[in-house]
Amino acid sequence: MFDKIQTPAVLVDIDLAKRNIERFQAYADSHDLKARPHIKTHKLPRIAELQLAAGAVGITCQKVSEAAAMVAGSDRITDVLITFNIIGDAKIAGLLELSRKVRLAVVADNATVVDGLSASFAAAGASLDVLVECNTGADRCGVGSPEAAAELAARIAAAPGLHFAGLMTYPPVGGAPRVQALMTEAKALIEAKGIAVPTVTSGGSPDLMSAHLAPVATEYRPGTYVYNDRSLVARGVCDWDDCALTVLATVVSVPAPDRAIIDAGSKTLTSDLLGLKGHGHVLGRPDISIDQLSEEHGRLRTDGDINLSVGQRLRIVPNHACVVTNMVDGVYAYGKDRAPELWPVPARGKIV
Amino acid sequence: MFDKIQTPAVLVDIDLAKRNIERFQAYADSHDLKARPHIKTHKLPRIAELQLAAGAVGITCQKVSEAAAMVAGSDRITDVLITFNIIGDAKIAGLLELSRKVRLAVVADNATVVDGLSASFAAAGASLDVLVECNTGADRCGVGSPEAAAELAARIAAAPGLHFAGLMTYPPVGGAPRVQALMTEAKALIEAKGIAVPTVTSGGSPDLMSAHLAPVATEYRPGTYVYNDRSLVARGVCDWDDCALTVLATVVSVPAPDRAIIDAGSKTLTSDLLGLKGHGHVLGRPDISIDQLSEEHGRLRTDGDINLSVGQRLRIVPNHACVVTNMVDGVYAYGKDRAPELWPVPARGKIV
Repeated sequence: MFDKIQTPAVLVDIDLAKRNIERFQAYADSHDLKARPHIKTHKLPRIAELQLAAGAVGITCQKVSEAAAMVAGSDRITDVLITFNIIGDAKIAGLLELSRKVRLAVVADNATVVDGLSASFAAAGASLDVLVECNTGADRCGVGSPEAAAELAARIAAAPGLHFAGLMTYPPVGGAPRVQALMTEAKALIEAKGIAVPTVTSGGSPDLMSAHLAPVATEYRPGTYVYNDRSLVARGVCDWDDCALTVLATVVSVPAPDRAIIDAGSKTLTSDLLGLKGHGHVLGRPDISIDQLSEEHGRLRTDGDINLSVGQRLRIVPNHACVVTNMVDGVYAYGKDRAPELWPVPARGKIV
Repeated sequence: MFDKIQTPAVLVDIDLAKRNIERFQAYADSHDLKARPHIKTHKLPRIAELQLAAGAVGITCQKVSEAAAMVAGSDRITDVLITFNIIGDAKIAGLLELSRKVRLAVVADNATVVDGLSASFAAAGASLDVLVECNTGADRCGVGSPEAAAELAARIAAAPGLHFAGLMTYPPVGGAPRVQALMTEAKALIEAKGIAVPTVTSGGSPDLMSAHLAPVATEYRPGTYVYNDRSLVARGVCDWDDCALTVLATVVSVPAPDRAIIDAGSKTLTSDLLGLKGHGHVLGRPDISIDQLSEEHGRLRTDGDINLSVGQRLRIVPNHACVVTNMVDGVYAYGKDRAPELWPVPARGKIV
């Protein structure tokens, strides 16, 4: 099926991706939770369309240019949340342009960001939904307390050109109790000021099937779930059979009985470890570890005889699917009734 | 100077790159060593032209598509070595096409690769230079002994459509004594068969100024030296003032007194550690560690007060310059007398 494809290449099983999408959507529906998948994992308008068709209320993006690429790629994408503090005239101009095309929201965790957004949107006579990002233990962005969330919500609600749209968090794994506690308290403080909190949005694929443990959340933003990867298998979230994205590689050297080299290195698999040892799982060969990557070489080791020959092809489940998507200009989409077809990845490399 | 540039962005100081190029070229010249820089670090035909103008005999690439992109980008690139086992009809067709445009050589470390190259080049009535890759301790590709090198050299020399062109290795850091020992013995064995060994090529930026410790080598292939990076500073090879590539980032959040978040994550800085702790060096702020990356966020920590404000811009020397180049469609080239100008990176993402 993949004979004509030059390696290394990224393969996406569309049937499996659909199954993953539908499984989470069914779970979300059963808990009255809105799904707003993060497209960072696939960066493909066509997969976003599958997520929307299954019932997602919109998509999540991380950067303005990423959102612009997705919106340009599908007229079915009409509702976008960008979960990032947007700063600077050029980026806010990009937001303004997007806000004329789709229902748009962003987040903020500080007054400088709020004031910058307000100045530009008010000057343009436009309006932007802004959610307050809260830190629920990941210690990345986010205000640190319910009081700080309420204060920033009031600032947004009072800011010309802005509309306070709710609370957002990206919790650490196992963070549902903290999400529930902090968001409930923040929501109450904000409502006590007479400000509505229409949305409370949380995310993260490792905990996607326990999102209901933080019932204060109205919305969930899983990303990796659409493809799954070695990190999610390691966490017990899924099995190898649920992994829709794999890297096709060729053995180019077997220089020692216990060692082989493939033509996929960190330029394809990336160096992301996500706490794991090794750089991916060779399908059908659980005895093999990918113990070292350079940019174009992956080194495979086993105890005993590696039993591979030069020219042989392997499929690898990467540690982290999202970052692999970002390494390639196109992925090969295939399925039970679909021959592999190269799909360009329009939102690859959209870092600004 | 960089006010108009949206962040994150990759900046390249062309004056510094030139100085780095000239320093190594002077060293190579003084030791009668040919320089054949590896372009993986910059992936830019214009920088390759600077390396050739300084005296390099040609360039090194790692993949066929990378070489094709470089050759298409400059008619001054006329001599290319691809240091990879090339397998498969499509890739060998690419080699054939390249061999009509430039002086081309590849490496091989096994008979399957040699036989594949020979079949296609002989059928096309063409000729290809092939070097034997030797393992001098890095345990990646490469034949493991002088005897195996001699055997494969004889196979290449006898193969229709191929010409044996010498020996190649990519040694581990500090590997010069092993290079000298293994290559000297292999060369003698091959010459004893009546086969000339015109080239012995070694590489690696960490040891570029001790290349002369393996005098059997006629040629050296440094890559990272053109930009330098945090890994080479850590090894004592250079100083921060020698680092030509930096990442420009903006502080988007200061959520705690000792913590700040920038808009550059693993999609720009990459997760490459190269044995280091942390993900880059913030210029002018040696107290700060970049202790965590997600795809679009970098987390900065310090002991005490981080003393940064939202909107402030920082410049970061990444752990590994080469992989950063591969993350972006363009870099901003600038210099003392040159305003920043966006240079597309034609060889980005060329993995096949």
